[in-house]
Formats: sequence, C-alpha cells, structure tokens
Amino acid sequence: MYEQLIKYIEQNSAVHLNKDEIEIIYNNFIPKKFRRRQFLLQEGEVCKYVAFIVKGAMRQYSIDEKGKEHIVGLCIENWWAGDRESFTKETPSGYFIDAWENTDVLMISKNNLVNLAKSVPAAAELSKILDERQAIALLRRVNSAISYSADQRLAELEKTYPEFLPRFPQHIIASYLGMTKETLSRIRSTGLKK
Amino acid sequence: MYEQLIKYIEQNSAVHLNKDEIEIIYNNFIPKKFRRRQFLLQEGEVCKYVAFIVKGAMRQYSIDEKGKEHIVGLCIENWWAGDRESFTKETPSGYFIDAWENTDVLMISKNNLVNLAKSVPAAAELSKILDERQAIALLRRVNSAISYSADQRLAELEKTYPEFLPRFPQHIIASYLGMTKETLSRIRSTGLKK
Repeated sequence: MYEQLIKYIEQNSAVHLNKDEIEIIYNNFIPKKFRRRQFLLQEGEVCKYVAFIVKGAMRQYSIDEKGKEHIVGLCIENWWAGDRESFTKETPSGYFIDAWENTDVLMISKNNLVNLAKSVPAAAELSKILDERQAIALLRRVNSAISYSADQRLAELEKTYPEFLPRFPQHIIASYLGMTKETLSRIRSTGLKK
Repeated sequence: MYEQLIKYIEQNSAVHLNKDEIEIIYNNFIPKKFRRRQFLLQEGEVCKYVAFIVKGAMRQYSIDEKGKEHIVGLCIENWWAGDRESFTKETPSGYFIDAWENTDVLMISKNNLVNLAKSVPAAAELSKILDERQAIALLRRVNSAISYSADQRLAELEKTYPEFLPRFPQHIIASYLGMTKETLSRIRSTGLKK
C-alpha cells in the first residue's frame, strides 16, 4: 500500500524521497480497510484523519432535514478523503464520509501531518499544491452550480472527471451535480441521440 | 495603504514583522486605484496580479452564452481579489473581476509573490492559511448551492458574510446565491414578517 503513496508524493511534488523520508512516511500513516458503507466520518464527529485512497471509492455528503443525501465530494484512487474544515479547526463536521466500494486507505492524523510537513519538504510542498488544486476545483464547481444548465454541468463533469461516470451510479452522479436522477437520465439519453 | 496590509499580515500570521520584512513587502506590492466598473481582469486574459483590497469592493463573475452574469465571488476590504486558477497556471481566465465601488488595492505579481514567500516567512504562512480558508469556504458554498433551499442559502450568507448585504444590491446578492432577484426579494420579505 505504501509504495503507491510514495510514488504519488514523488510524482506530485517532483522530488525524489530519500530512505529516511520514506521511513518517516511509513511511520506517520496508518493503513486501514473500509468495507462498503463503512464510515470514515459521521456528522457531528471531529474529523481526526485524512485518508489517502490506495484502492476503492468514497463519498462525502450532507443529509438535509428531510433526510436527503447531497454529495459534496467523490474520491477514488490517489485522492484524499476527509473534511478539511473539521480536520483543521477540530470542530464537529457537517458531513458524512463513507466507502462506496471496499476501500483501502492510508490515514494520517493532524499531529502526524504537522510532523511530516516539518521533516519531509516534499510533503509540505505537496500539501501546498493540493490546497491550490482544491481551491481551483471548488471554484469551478461553484461556478458550475450557480451558472450552468444541467447539461452543461454534466458536460463539465465528463470533461473534468470522466473516471467518475463508470464508477458511481446515476443517483450519486445526479446528487453530485445538484440535479434529480430524472433530469440526469433525460440529458444523458438526449446526449446519446446527438 | 501599506499599513493596512502590514497589519493584516501580522494579525493573520500571528507574527511581528521586522523592518527588513516590511521593506520587502513595500517593494513587492504595487498600489493601484480602480474606478467603479474598471476591470482588474477580463475573461480570456491571464490573471497577472492578485489584489489586496485596502478600501472598496470588487466582484468576480462569469458571463454565460446568453450574456447573463453569474457572481462567483465578492470581495471587500482585507480580502484578496484574483483568479487563482489563471494566476497559478498562467492560463486564460474564465472570469471577469471588476470594481463595484471605487477601490484602492495593493497588487502583487506571481514572481513577486514567490519572492515574498521565500524572504518573509509570515507571508508564506499567511498564504497557507488563506488557501486553507478558501478551500473551506468554497466547500461550504458547494454544499449550500447543491443542497440548500433558497432561504437556507440566504440564512447561511447572513451568518457567514453579514457585511455583504448592505454593500451589494439585491441582484448581485441573488446572483451570488444562484437564485433570481425575485426569489431573493420574496424570501427577504417573508423573513422580515417572521
């Protein structure tokens, strides 16, 4: 499991890790297996770990007062799952994160992440790059949610994360896009006829 | 103008800046005045500067194929205006940023920002904190856009950024919230009667 994380850090920070650094990484992450539907985080809990997904898929969602789920994030291999706000501020989360498939992760706590960033420059660099990417991706998503029509939102998803479509069922994709399953089904079938 | 930026950096990074660091900050930022409706950035341009707002208000928006504006961001004093994606990747922006009021800013280019982060640790620290805050704020906004009703979205805005409401007219707030001016007007008047 760790090899994949090492490779990921090296590729994304464009730095070759030395033996000591690799050992520090091994010592700071905990491997864990989640079965489908098992929770990494539940609403009201403080998010104590962020998880690097080695294999599998997770989803982050809120549940509204009517009991309806709203998917705010989907994560697959080489993505990070966790509620950033709760993890950083140590406040109760407003989200659930669960495994959509049986999922293998490497988890790191806040203290260990701080230690890691101090002792492995590539990890600090990576953390900065990930923040940047997340801010960029989320602004795109805000723009898509407030200004795009349903079919433009689907087209944006197909362009940005084509890997999501075969991985998650229609109702999950629809919720991620902020539309009903029926709307998604309609625009997908119209799209196919074009 | 610079005093406000110095104070802002010190407060947000919890570090006292020394004379040399203050001089570096002076040398890396350019003061500029924008008149109402003047552009900091237009769609298709590369965003060359991020701007710290000393006084005034700016808005960031996209324009759809029907010519309709969609407000993705609003910025007032002590906020930063700029398109993060275009600035970082040096790609053409999909957004316009203009002054909503006559606005005084201190602008910094990408090269200068890199230099600043290297020579002033508080600036590097601040940049990290800002990334974190932005990622947190944007995820809240995605959740609000895909899962909240119109009145919940307004309530969230009133709680999070109460300073926006007296500063921007109804149609700007409505666009920021992803709803029509009529819907906003209706829920505001219903709210007042409660």
